[in-house]
Amino acid sequence: MNAEIITIGSEILIGDILNTHAQFLSKQLNSIGIDVLWHSSVGDNSARLEQILKLATDRSDLIFLTGGLGPTQDDITKQVLSKTISKPLVEDATLKLQIKEKFKQKNIYMPKSNLKQAMIFEDSIIFENKNGTAPGMAIKFNSKTIILLPGPPKELVPMFKQEVIPFLEKLTNCIIKSKNIYLYGITESQVDEKIAHILKNETNPSVGIYAKPEQIRLRITCKAQNENQCDSLIENMFKKIKLKLENFIYSTDEAGMENALVKAALENNKKIAVAESCTGGLIASKIVSVKNASKCFNFAAVCYSNEMKKKILKVNQVDLEKFGAVSSQVAQQMAKNAQLISGADIAISTTGIADSGGENEQNKPIGLVFVGLSTNEQTIAFKINFPGDSFNQRKRIINSTSIFAMNLARKTILSLKD
Amino acid sequence: MNAEIITIGSEILIGDILNTHAQFLSKQLNSIGIDVLWHSSVGDNSARLEQILKLATDRSDLIFLTGGLGPTQDDITKQVLSKTISKPLVEDATLKLQIKEKFKQKNIYMPKSNLKQAMIFEDSIIFENKNGTAPGMAIKFNSKTIILLPGPPKELVPMFKQEVIPFLEKLTNCIIKSKNIYLYGITESQVDEKIAHILKNETNPSVGIYAKPEQIRLRITCKAQNENQCDSLIENMFKKIKLKLENFIYSTDEAGMENALVKAALENNKKIAVAESCTGGLIASKIVSVKNASKCFNFAAVCYSNEMKKKILKVNQVDLEKFGAVSSQVAQQMAKNAQLISGADIAISTTGIADSGGENEQNKPIGLVFVGLSTNEQTIAFKINFPGDSFNQRKRIINSTSIFAMNLARKTILSLKD
Repeated sequence: MNAEIITIGSEILIGDILNTHAQFLSKQLNSIGIDVLWHSSVGDNSARLEQILKLATDRSDLIFLTGGLGPTQDDITKQVLSKTISKPLVEDATLKLQIKEKFKQKNIYMPKSNLKQAMIFEDSIIFENKNGTAPGMAIKFNSKTIILLPGPPKELVPMFKQEVIPFLEKLTNCIIKSKNIYLYGITESQVDEKIAHILKNETNPSVGIYAKPEQIRLRITCKAQNENQCDSLIENMFKKIKLKLENFIYSTDEAGMENALVKAALENNKKIAVAESCTGGLIASKIVSVKNASKCFNFAAVCYSNEMKKKILKVNQVDLEKFGAVSSQVAQQMAKNAQLISGADIAISTTGIADSGGENEQNKPIGLVFVGLSTNEQTIAFKINFPGDSFNQRKRIINSTSIFAMNLARKTILSLKD
Repeated sequence: MNAEIITIGSEILIGDILNTHAQFLSKQLNSIGIDVLWHSSVGDNSARLEQILKLATDRSDLIFLTGGLGPTQDDITKQVLSKTISKPLVEDATLKLQIKEKFKQKNIYMPKSNLKQAMIFEDSIIFENKNGTAPGMAIKFNSKTIILLPGPPKELVPMFKQEVIPFLEKLTNCIIKSKNIYLYGITESQVDEKIAHILKNETNPSVGIYAKPEQIRLRITCKAQNENQCDSLIENMFKKIKLKLENFIYSTDEAGMENALVKAALENNKKIAVAESCTGGLIASKIVSVKNASKCFNFAAVCYSNEMKKKILKVNQVDLEKFGAVSSQVAQQMAKNAQLISGADIAISTTGIADSGGENEQNKPIGLVFVGLSTNEQTIAFKINFPGDSFNQRKRIINSTSIFAMNLARKTILSLKD
């Protein structure tokens, strides 16, 4: 079953917003085995919308339209679709009541134009919008299915997950499940080398390899008649892959090293502290972006000068002079003292050269970074040389360092004995 | 002149990468007065690429193709275009030499397939690729212009800015310039109310209003025969707008409050310190993401528990008990002591309730935040109530707080007397 995604809205064409819907829907559809062959974006313009709708209903089995379901004059999706596929819109009495009720509950005046949102295609399936007033819907047109979704992400995302996915499973008449495996510390070609023999000639479950900077994701996808069968086929494949790649797997749940780190800390009841120089607070802010972080994290010091490293993190003046701020010695002292100050079980530190604007460090190269680690058992530091490259170099080095350090903390937590 | 952007690559259709090229090119083209009417994405598939190329050369004046210029079998853009517009590819001797030279300089073996990148359309204009081996090019086809750009952002972005923009200016036969104005602390409808009378009936320069969460951007765009004329028309319009909105303009240079804050601090030779609770290091990491931040920033403390607030930031135990951690008193003490510890000219602090997982704060509502500010002259705190909303609430409150605090610091720096 081939799908196509059409995002509607002039704000995409002027470059004011990124087309995150196309990515979200592609990812979701891909994970249930539906191939997406086209993305298109058009503005709020009837003629061009009609043109792309004709093309899409001709070439794709499943067409997703996002946006243009609002109450204003600009919102033309349903009207143009109605014209293109020659199906009339009718007012739905239940929806009308529901929309009126939503305004009433919030105690605000409902503009009459909002009743536009109670207009549906006669035999369409309605997807409830729990976070707004525009319902989604699925419309049969010849052998094709057209799905309308609201534009705001906070309406589209939950509607898709809660209502559209079950609808699609019924439509494709089988259960499709997938499991993601997130890897760190290994290259795409190394992964390929290690598991190619497992994947050879295997089509169900299938395994996709997707590489991004700092992360490789494997996705096992399986089709079956029922959920149990699906789960067991996926688990079998996962076990085979795990045997080869266990050391590099940091999550089978969600992407983002900070999520895996907070999970490890909460499950093992460990507290983390952070001492940051070159990463400048990025590690702390990533940890804090995870819900419940306050239960495993209480302190980070961002010390961006030698002065502050001495004053807050008690780094030794003699060592600072002898080895420089970007050194194994300083990284270790930063980590050790952050641990002591906060009473954490584990502390990580960073000190490095992120670009040419840094403090003078006796000709140390851009990309040189030390990551320190301290626990009750040990204090160590790792030296890393990130490649120097002029494009976005500063942000890349800072980000790569933050992930390396969080992975180090995560692995250490998992290895700590109580 | 109407443009269309076609991004080529299966990684977009499986949702593995966001289509940032479409946004970048749309923004750039828009800023020089070229309207983008279509975005499309197709995978590395000849038949579908040919279909969209036929459509595009039919409906648009200017067609941008990104990706598929690499040396591998998957890279089919030039071959398919050649077939679609019936123009042959020829080997360019100069390019061939240049590509060989690039490999030689890096002292690595050149796979023969790389010579594919020396194949061009006979009468095309070549855009040099300073960061890779695939050149860009512009091809005339009937009255249309087709522009090929390499896929990697670090190759496409500089090539577009340095080579394609001047080419397009020649093509459109006039100078088009624009100036951005970034606003904070005002809503879109308030902006509209204040400047609608200025914009009325004005078409050159034209002014666009673009609203995003936490930021409104105005863009003045002007067409003229020469650069001086352009500049002076833009400056006149800017002066009129400034008269109405001066208080809300934080930058006419680039987006991002952190850039404006670091700029203000460097120009006024002021040092900033940060004490973060609810923002958890986000303010520090944003500041540090700006080049040369080390010249105006040396310290942030992330104190995510009462314990650490007392120990590091010397917050008073009695006040913590009486008013709670999320209070004006605590915000002020955090800022004051961060300033004293670091010797900074100005310190900002944050303490607030970002979601229900936070510490118990006697029924204080989600979204309640205090931002503290300390200088040699004063210590104050601001109370903010961000709207509670379930979607991405935690990240939104943290981010909004960081921008509010940085703007406060920026405005204070600009008002400080030496």
